[in-house]
Amino acid sequence: MELVSKRRFELFAGRAHPKLAQEIADNLGVKLGESNLKEFADGQLHCRFASSIRGKDVFILQTHVGDTQVGSVNDAIMEQLIMLDAAKRASAKHITAVCPYYGYSRQDRKATGREPITAKLIADMLIVAGADRVVSVDLHSGQIQGFFDVPFDHLTAMPVLVDYLNQVNAHESPATKMVIVSPDAGRVKVAERFAQQLNCDLALVHKRHPTGTINEVEALSVVGDVKGRRCVLVDDMIDTAGTICAAAELLKSRGATQVWAMATHPILSDMAVDRLKNSVLTKVIVTNTLPVPEHKRIDKMVVLSVAELVAEAIRAVFKDTSVSEIFGGANLA
Amino acid sequence: MELVSKRRFELFAGRAHPKLAQEIADNLGVKLGESNLKEFADGQLHCRFASSIRGKDVFILQTHVGDTQVGSVNDAIMEQLIMLDAAKRASAKHITAVCPYYGYSRQDRKATGREPITAKLIADMLIVAGADRVVSVDLHSGQIQGFFDVPFDHLTAMPVLVDYLNQVNAHESPATKMVIVSPDAGRVKVAERFAQQLNCDLALVHKRHPTGTINEVEALSVVGDVKGRRCVLVDDMIDTAGTICAAAELLKSRGATQVWAMATHPILSDMAVDRLKNSVLTKVIVTNTLPVPEHKRIDKMVVLSVAELVAEAIRAVFKDTSVSEIFGGANLA
Amino acid sequence: MELVSKRRFELFAGRAHPKLAQEIADNLGVKLGESNLKEFADGQLHCRFASSIRGKDVFILQTHVGDTQVGSVNDAIMEQLIMLDAAKRASAKHITAVCPYYGYSRQDRKATGREPITAKLIADMLIVAGADRVVSVDLHSGQIQGFFDVPFDHLTAMPVLVDYLNQVNAHESPATKMVIVSPDAGRVKVAERFAQQLNCDLALVHKRHPTGTINEVEALSVVGDVKGRRCVLVDDMIDTAGTICAAAELLKSRGATQVWAMATHPILSDMAVDRLKNSVLTKVIVTNTLPVPEHKRIDKMVVLSVAELVAEAIRAVFKDTSVSEIFGGANLA
Amino acid sequence: MELVSKRRFELFAGRAHPKLAQEIADNLGVKLGESNLKEFADGQLHCRFASSIRGKDVFILQTHVGDTQVGSVNDAIMEQLIMLDAAKRASAKHITAVCPYYGYSRQDRKATGREPITAKLIADMLIVAGADRVVSVDLHSGQIQGFFDVPFDHLTAMPVLVDYLNQVNAHESPATKMVIVSPDAGRVKVAERFAQQLNCDLALVHKRHPTGTINEVEALSVVGDVKGRRCVLVDDMIDTAGTICAAAELLKSRGATQVWAMATHPILSDMAVDRLKNSVLTKVIVTNTLPVPEHKRIDKMVVLSVAELVAEAIRAVFKDTSVSEIFGGANLA
Amino acid sequence: MELVSKRRFELFAGRAHPKLAQEIADNLGVKLGESNLKEFADGQLHCRFASSIRGKDVFILQTHVGDTQVGSVNDAIMEQLIMLDAAKRASAKHITAVCPYYGYSRQDRKATGREPITAKLIADMLIVAGADRVVSVDLHSGQIQGFFDVPFDHLTAMPVLVDYLNQVNAHESPATKMVIVSPDAGRVKVAERFAQQLNCDLALVHKRHPTGTINEVEALSVVGDVKGRRCVLVDDMIDTAGTICAAAELLKSRGATQVWAMATHPILSDMAVDRLKNSVLTKVIVTNTLPVPEHKRIDKMVVLSVAELVAEAIRAVFKDTSVSEIFGGANLA
Amino acid sequence: MELVSKRRFELFAGRAHPKLAQEIADNLGVKLGESNLKEFADGQLHCRFASSIRGKDVFILQTHVGDTQVGSVNDAIMEQLIMLDAAKRASAKHITAVCPYYGYSRQDRKATGREPITAKLIADMLIVAGADRVVSVDLHSGQIQGFFDVPFDHLTAMPVLVDYLNQVNAHESPATKMVIVSPDAGRVKVAERFAQQLNCDLALVHKRHPTGTINEVEALSVVGDVKGRRCVLVDDMIDTAGTICAAAELLKSRGATQVWAMATHPILSDMAVDRLKNSVLTKVIVTNTLPVPEHKRIDKMVVLSVAELVAEAIRAVFKDTSVSEIFGGANLA
Repeated sequence: MELVSKRRFELFAGRAHPKLAQEIADNLGVKLGESNLKEFADGQLHCRFASSIRGKDVFILQTHVGDTQVGSVNDAIMEQLIMLDAAKRASAKHITAVCPYYGYSRQDRKATGREPITAKLIADMLIVAGADRVVSVDLHSGQIQGFFDVPFDHLTAMPVLVDYLNQVNAHESPATKMVIVSPDAGRVKVAERFAQQLNCDLALVHKRHPTGTINEVEALSVVGDVKGRRCVLVDDMIDTAGTICAAAELLKSRGATQVWAMATHPILSDMAVDRLKNSVLTKVIVTNTLPVPEHKRIDKMVVLSVAELVAEAIRAVFKDTSVSEIFGGANLA
Repeated sequence: MELVSKRRFELFAGRAHPKLAQEIADNLGVKLGESNLKEFADGQLHCRFASSIRGKDVFILQTHVGDTQVGSVNDAIMEQLIMLDAAKRASAKHITAVCPYYGYSRQDRKATGREPITAKLIADMLIVAGADRVVSVDLHSGQIQGFFDVPFDHLTAMPVLVDYLNQVNAHESPATKMVIVSPDAGRVKVAERFAQQLNCDLALVHKRHPTGTINEVEALSVVGDVKGRRCVLVDDMIDTAGTICAAAELLKSRGATQVWAMATHPILSDMAVDRLKNSVLTKVIVTNTLPVPEHKRIDKMVVLSVAELVAEAIRAVFKDTSVSEIFGGANLA
Repeated sequence: MELVSKRRFELFAGRAHPKLAQEIADNLGVKLGESNLKEFADGQLHCRFASSIRGKDVFILQTHVGDTQVGSVNDAIMEQLIMLDAAKRASAKHITAVCPYYGYSRQDRKATGREPITAKLIADMLIVAGADRVVSVDLHSGQIQGFFDVPFDHLTAMPVLVDYLNQVNAHESPATKMVIVSPDAGRVKVAERFAQQLNCDLALVHKRHPTGTINEVEALSVVGDVKGRRCVLVDDMIDTAGTICAAAELLKSRGATQVWAMATHPILSDMAVDRLKNSVLTKVIVTNTLPVPEHKRIDKMVVLSVAELVAEAIRAVFKDTSVSEIFGGANLA
Repeated sequence: MELVSKRRFELFAGRAHPKLAQEIADNLGVKLGESNLKEFADGQLHCRFASSIRGKDVFILQTHVGDTQVGSVNDAIMEQLIMLDAAKRASAKHITAVCPYYGYSRQDRKATGREPITAKLIADMLIVAGADRVVSVDLHSGQIQGFFDVPFDHLTAMPVLVDYLNQVNAHESPATKMVIVSPDAGRVKVAERFAQQLNCDLALVHKRHPTGTINEVEALSVVGDVKGRRCVLVDDMIDTAGTICAAAELLKSRGATQVWAMATHPILSDMAVDRLKNSVLTKVIVTNTLPVPEHKRIDKMVVLSVAELVAEAIRAVFKDTSVSEIFGGANLA
Repeated sequence: MELVSKRRFELFAGRAHPKLAQEIADNLGVKLGESNLKEFADGQLHCRFASSIRGKDVFILQTHVGDTQVGSVNDAIMEQLIMLDAAKRASAKHITAVCPYYGYSRQDRKATGREPITAKLIADMLIVAGADRVVSVDLHSGQIQGFFDVPFDHLTAMPVLVDYLNQVNAHESPATKMVIVSPDAGRVKVAERFAQQLNCDLALVHKRHPTGTINEVEALSVVGDVKGRRCVLVDDMIDTAGTICAAAELLKSRGATQVWAMATHPILSDMAVDRLKNSVLTKVIVTNTLPVPEHKRIDKMVVLSVAELVAEAIRAVFKDTSVSEIFGGANLA
Repeated sequence: MELVSKRRFELFAGRAHPKLAQEIADNLGVKLGESNLKEFADGQLHCRFASSIRGKDVFILQTHVGDTQVGSVNDAIMEQLIMLDAAKRASAKHITAVCPYYGYSRQDRKATGREPITAKLIADMLIVAGADRVVSVDLHSGQIQGFFDVPFDHLTAMPVLVDYLNQVNAHESPATKMVIVSPDAGRVKVAERFAQQLNCDLALVHKRHPTGTINEVEALSVVGDVKGRRCVLVDDMIDTAGTICAAAELLKSRGATQVWAMATHPILSDMAVDRLKNSVLTKVIVTNTLPVPEHKRIDKMVVLSVAELVAEAIRAVFKDTSVSEIFGGANLA
């Protein structure tokens, strides 16, 4: 017996962010596969693919977020793992886990003794469940790629975010001078990359947070020149928004004319939305790697879509064309 | 340099069932270790052991259940995984995962095509996170032991449950004839083991449930002699209680004088408690492998403790004495 | 250089059951590959594939049985492992181990302490030798699928067996009432599945066998209504036939009009054939997953072929079409 | 809780060579552990350790040979694997597989395309079953050590064999000149090592055997000076004895005064004993790494014991003292 | 047989930095083990431990640096790998790789497509060679810990460096205001940590280096206030010194009164020493994690020793006491 | 989406032997891929593939030799490992490591205690870095194939070498009798294979080298008839040439009319070229598996090319045609 070998495509999505999944499917011109995801009474999750995926190139999309139809962030992760396991056992030929937001990415090293490195645990779990490759957007640190021994396509929403700023700037008075500000000593590298792309200055809010205190705000100081400028605080994610709002206030007090916040991942936990609403920030620019439900969409918030970007990457993976060219060879990490 | 090698003990517990953890620690005469477990605003979990566990034999206890302080069953599992990872990276010498109830144990095979085998996924996750050994009680199927390549101590609550029945029987009229009833064709083996221990008859409720319908009750029939007897329905767990209540009703309609239910694991999801309360069952005997909060404790329910049993097994593991002798060499399934 | 990728097929068989191998090859319309299997004077086995299998999809068929040309059951297993190793090193692209009967499947858990789980050992050995996928028929327990992290196609001979019974019934007086009987508490689930398919009643022979006594028969009792019926004892295998013959006798003594035995795997060890011949059984229905040599073919025995079933599954695996559809989505475990 | 850590010893043996096992146990001054090995009617093997081995350093001895109580060589190997698996699951602390003769050691590379490397498969199987370390005697090639990633103690019977020759020589006329002869181009290295130890000359029988013909004898020629000497043919094993008897005849025809054969492993398959009896060989010196039953013990055969040697190595492994010193730092191959 | 289990210590060192090895051994009060390291004529490396290490806790020290007695940095790494392999095969009980400087640590992520992640490759190589644990000092990024699944003790030279600055400051006029400067956007986090410890200000030299240009200096700008201050540039390593010297010049031109450089790892490649000598820097403070041979020791250079620090960590690992307490619980990265 | 699957080819080469790489590429009719290999100032290596290799069948060629543009032999090995890692992470579909000379192949077993088995370490490193298959020429021992669990294509330069001798012989007086001589007891098997192919006699130089002395020459003796013959010393490699030159001298002194040396791998370390030049050898025949720079090319040396051979093997691997047929089914060792 002899057959010409074909590659056949199938995209499944977990329930954490159905809207993004649909947008990506639309961009690819495919129908989302049916996974029959459900939750038993005891909270245990189940999936069963509706039709044969034997020999197919399967992509399993889930963003790692809680407070959605699926439940907690751990529920979202577990749902993806179960789908990977089912795909592996159903004889998919090649399985790609697509995680627009990679959970636990901040726990990527031991900051003190006797801590876990949960981002590595997630990596090991994705692999053990069946992923042959991982695609993600704007990891908290690029080193997470090295937690994997399988190919990892690390996408960035930077083109989408930079484009937006460039468009806004094009309509504004040329006198408006913009400065990119890192809200934290550990994020200056990313801020620098934006500053390079936008050809503008860089500043830094210097937070003094002793080990172990997290999600809290403390004595801050600004390094760099912000007076009379429009400050754009750049980060990978907005979680409780505590840090970024405090930074904004400080920048304002140091003479910034305007303060904007920009980040790829809108986690928006807890009181984040209230904080943002009540803050001195006049614009908050995020993407849809995570769902932003209506009740979180305040006026000053702009949500840009990464669907086309992710769809292009998925298409390139399936067709074996270059992913890095999608980003014009930009530095992805 | 030369040192006499010592074994040092430490027991940590996740937050799914603090009461059982405390009971076990008390039985062992130790203090529970401090893990500083917490949840960030986005639902991500974290742990940090308060003092050095370098070179220690560490036991990490978590029962896999939801609707508790930790959140969903997946949260409970993830919490244990994170603790295992932290223990591994903190140079514990030997790490034992103690799971009084092993999550997803019913998803132990592919009942139809394109399903996951989640019980195996849980096994792989425990191992990849750092477990060197696993201890659990009354697995849904004994074959789950084979999902592991590390030692697995499979305990059974049968002695505790049998003892209880024997004590009750001792106080009753000798005329009361008891019959052990399996509520499902797949559980007859376990029911038989109880019947052997109690030296009484066996019957079976024969459920016709086509593939894919779960947590639902259908046309049932009884196989075996139940008329004029006290029927004790025996299962490994009570989840929604749908099956067991329907079985009880049927047994009653076939002439049973009394129907009791007995199971190791009281999952008690959903409307389980209401169902049990309104059912023909006159006694529901379970253990505390899972927490039974006050509002679930109805009058007819008896909750027996496995704490001593688990504690003895932990002590035997630590001291390298025989675990199977704790159970008098009983068949562990 | 660029090439269109092709899938090329090759089927090899060990020497344990050449007749089934030939039947399967005939069904597939292919010639069996030449493996040059031989045994050196010291009993060590050797294989050498006669022609290049580089880049091919290779299927290596062996049923795990002893007392054949190959020798013991361990010889049969080892022969398959050696073939897998040779195929892997000869650069086969994808290797499927086809085991119509999976050896040591009864040793799938620790029934008592300090035992092996040999079914898991066999799984690990198949994988380490080179299998990328496993196909088997009617495992002793479906959980054995979970011993593997590679895809496992679990076939069932149930359609073949049910068809046979339906045909027989069609020619008989409608007055003949059939009841499916499980010869053991642990096999009721399988019996129930047959009863569901055949739309008839269920009974159970309840064997009391203390831990450690195997292949022996003891005090039995019947649960369920068998009087005046044709009883069909259903099991996955007939090994020494001790249990099934004793069960048959008991059923007869309880008023069964006729007792038949039905099982997928005819191991027929030891005195099995004599026992069957001298038993009250009037029909013994098995399949050819294991060889039944002429001298074991007694008059009352019917041997049905699974060759077409296995061939269809192999074809589906090669062509990436659905295996579960071959079985009409039937519950495979 | 705190304990002083102790190392406790236990030696189990498979059934392939009970006499050697007993000798080794006697040398160590221990009682052999009880494994309850048995064979079911279908030839499947089983073991169950009689008492707890939790935390013990367990040694599992089996020589890889067929035609014994266990059955074929594959049965012997499988028995050891099953014991390893049981020991691993019974929580032994450290498990050493002791294989006086390592099966399939001649299949240690691909001599032609599409062959297995079965010696590597055996290595992988020992590891997957649970061995943490392996001890063996006179491997066919020293490179087999590299098939393992765990420690491998490679013992040699050379001291025992050399001692014997030295003692014999001491009682003979000094005029007797001895020459060590390799019966095969591939064994000259080993022969050279003996010649170095005995301080005598080296010769070589040069066999022309085309790929694929095994266990057969062909046109041979002698390289080196053998006239008027006592030739001692040295090999690692005597299997069918075809090669060695033909070599002996040739040496005799070239003027050797006497021809002896010496080898560590007496496989003695097939017609080996008859061939040796009828050959020109006047002495055949072997060890007891494999059993030599009474009916194979011909007059000219001397069987030396390796029991003390193996016992010393086991003791050194248990006590963490040097194994290589047992052999005076001799080159182990 | 029964033995009290003992832990026995042995420290071996590769040849990359014998002086540090000796200092550490002296601190520990032990003699360095003899490894008989040598290089064959073809450059292949070899080791043979002089005495038995069976059952010992072995530490294998090598800093990853070239241009030493061993040769290139790859030679140094390979030497350590060979020693690890030899230790594993010689039955060491527990093996720790101590790498004061971890090679290839800057290649810890894919900065552009189609690059390796060599720091992960080094991790995998250490593990595959036999390391059970790794100890290193001031990794380029803390995430490298997550490249390992074994415990990783991440030490920091910060206490040694901070102490030095504090002592210097104690003897200087209180008017001297110090500012910690990061020479790169990616190193601000580390600089911040120093600023926190020294309770002083933070600034940043902002280098614009497009992807792919490495070891070169470009248009720089300063962010933060440096006028009239003593600037201390803080980095993890000084390689070619190009970046740091350019930064120093810029700082000086912006009014810094003095510029110092401080880094843990003195790689000092190429023209680094000349650059430092000719730069505006007035002090260069490094540690001895890498050798600084006499000809590289210029007047303005201070080399502090990490020997005590590493020795204490090794002692803690051997004795199972807390490593993080050595550093007062300081944030290790 | 659906695609016909294609195989696309790409060949990259490390910098150890660019001339052979070019010859192989020419033979294949392809252009060598661009890897942008470079060395940073600190000796760390880097690569970045110039264009996308996603989904390609990639071959990465490096011979393991030092004293070249790359540096030491360890540098050459590390360069290949880094290329493998980059290829794996760049989503190559299938990666073959081509090692014309396999480094550390002589360290293939523990000759004494406490040594590494570095050839196994190299194997593990190639695998961990990303190789899916390995191709090499004339391994020091064929057993190294068994160090791998992936397919290994073991090529031999024997046809090239034998052809050369046959051509030379064809032009010489038929009176010239040739004898193949092994320079070492451990290489007689290879010499025998040449003697079989050339249909001539075999002899052996018997070197007495105690364990541990390497690259040195000692008391030798000849076994076999060499008087009046042309002796061709055959080995797998010429390293320092000490052994082979001493053997040549001895053969000459025993009456050989001419002595030639023949080996696949010209390592030619140290004083090898001087030794060969000044030796009694009149011809030295090697291949170009390793580079032989101009200054090492003495008059009596003949360098034959294996480029066509390796190219044919690479083509066969890519096209899934038989590799062993390239060698006419010759025994590959």
